Amino acid sequence: MLNVRSVLVTGSNRGLGLELVRQLAEKSKGPEWVFATCRDPEGPRAQDLKNLAAKYRSVKILPMDTSDPSSIKTAAAKVTEKLQGAGLNLLINNAAIVRPNTLELETAEDMAEVYKTNLIGSMVVTQAFLPLLRKASQESPQKGMSCSKAAIVNVSSEAGSITSLLAWEHGHVINYRCSKAALNMLTRCQSLGFAEDEILCIALHPGWVQTDMGNAAGPAPLTVDASVGAALNTLGRLTEKDNGTFVNWEGAAVPW
Amino acid sequence: MLNVRSVLVTGSNRGLGLELVRQLAEKSKGPEWVFATCRDPEGPRAQDLKNLAAKYRSVKILPMDTSDPSSIKTAAAKVTEKLQGAGLNLLINNAAIVRPNTLELETAEDMAEVYKTNLIGSMVVTQAFLPLLRKASQESPQKGMSCSKAAIVNVSSEAGSITSLLAWEHGHVINYRCSKAALNMLTRCQSLGFAEDEILCIALHPGWVQTDMGNAAGPAPLTVDASVGAALNTLGRLTEKDNGTFVNWEGAAVPW
Repeated sequence: MLNVRSVLVTGSNRGLGLELVRQLAEKSKGPEWVFATCRDPEGPRAQDLKNLAAKYRSVKILPMDTSDPSSIKTAAAKVTEKLQGAGLNLLINNAAIVRPNTLELETAEDMAEVYKTNLIGSMVVTQAFLPLLRKASQESPQKGMSCSKAAIVNVSSEAGSITSLLAWEHGHVINYRCSKAALNMLTRCQSLGFAEDEILCIALHPGWVQTDMGNAAGPAPLTVDASVGAALNTLGRLTEKDNGTFVNWEGAAVPW
Repeated sequence: MLNVRSVLVTGSNRGLGLELVRQLAEKSKGPEWVFATCRDPEGPRAQDLKNLAAKYRSVKILPMDTSDPSSIKTAAAKVTEKLQGAGLNLLINNAAIVRPNTLELETAEDMAEVYKTNLIGSMVVTQAFLPLLRKASQESPQKGMSCSKAAIVNVSSEAGSITSLLAWEHGHVINYRCSKAALNMLTRCQSLGFAEDEILCIALHPGWVQTDMGNAAGPAPLTVDASVGAALNTLGRLTEKDNGTFVNWEGAAVPW
């Protein structure tokens, strides 16, 4: 069972991010802090998240644009301040974008933009929160690795599996697929680099989910609620033998 | 045996690119045209390539900066003109850069810069030369796929294999590894997208080679000459069953 004192979710105003925050906050004996970041907390697209924060004291909204390193630093400083010396147990890099396009018409601009948010953003966020993740690992009495102790979950996609190329016939989206293949590589590198800190690193395929992004690609089979519920159960079960792997919402291995 | 009328190699002024041009031009019954592109043909680092062009009539040097789409378009127009209605059999996307760094200190700027050259550059080059590759495929009397008919060879690296992470202990180089994992994804996508055109698409690991780039990472075991000789033999043997795969210089499969 996932049992964290603090968690941070990026891209949390909609879709999977919003549902992650909701289900984490709703848990009995849930986290003391659920840091929920999004680009524009004051904008109209953050109203659902603001409603959650009004309902649950644990939910703290912070502005963060993962394509802007200075906004990431500001958010990390605020989280450090709120945690008052405690570490951050779980970082969920969920923020991502996609630009619909075909293989032949894909553009250099969209490739760069999507990589900046989906890959570079996740990398810089992790660098910024690494001291807090290390602190959580050090202060934990638990042996070994777990998402309850200290973990980085990179929300990837089976669309970024070079082997399976999920939903190719529904959209080439080279910008997205390349960014997620690169995110899987980053996850593996992080799993090696942070192993001695006992920080668990995972690439997670949440399923093809009925979010704005998922529905744009075609008939998404999985509800947001079911995806997130199963994914949180899966996170609760992971141990160091899973470090550096690619798993789906139900915990099944996904090929690179 | 590789038997092409025309071939284009990017990043051809040094290392693997230069040796590819040399061995292609030296072949008896070699290509009629070996288009050799590099950023600055008039600069001091292109002297070896200019010497080759002076020695072999087939070698045509063209300026091309793969991080600059307009220079790619200009080069494609010049190649189209020189081919006088014929197609291009073989495109070798070899140009690549790396920025030495560690996982923790990797920067957003280097990540973006390396992706721009290694991944986006390769993609835009392929888009620009696709009409010539299609023409080569259409005008060929050969059945099926081969590098002698029409092919895209993306020079990747086992350092970009998420499974094997070659030479991790010699350098994290997240910028490079992520760009090559993404290039492998692009190759798979191209293999699906261009299959009906009968254009063979391959990701090639040339080995850990004694180039400036290879030596910077540590004690590279393979000479440039041996790598390129074996790689050209391998390219000559590939058929449609190899389409969309990742092979090393000797033709062995490399895991994603």
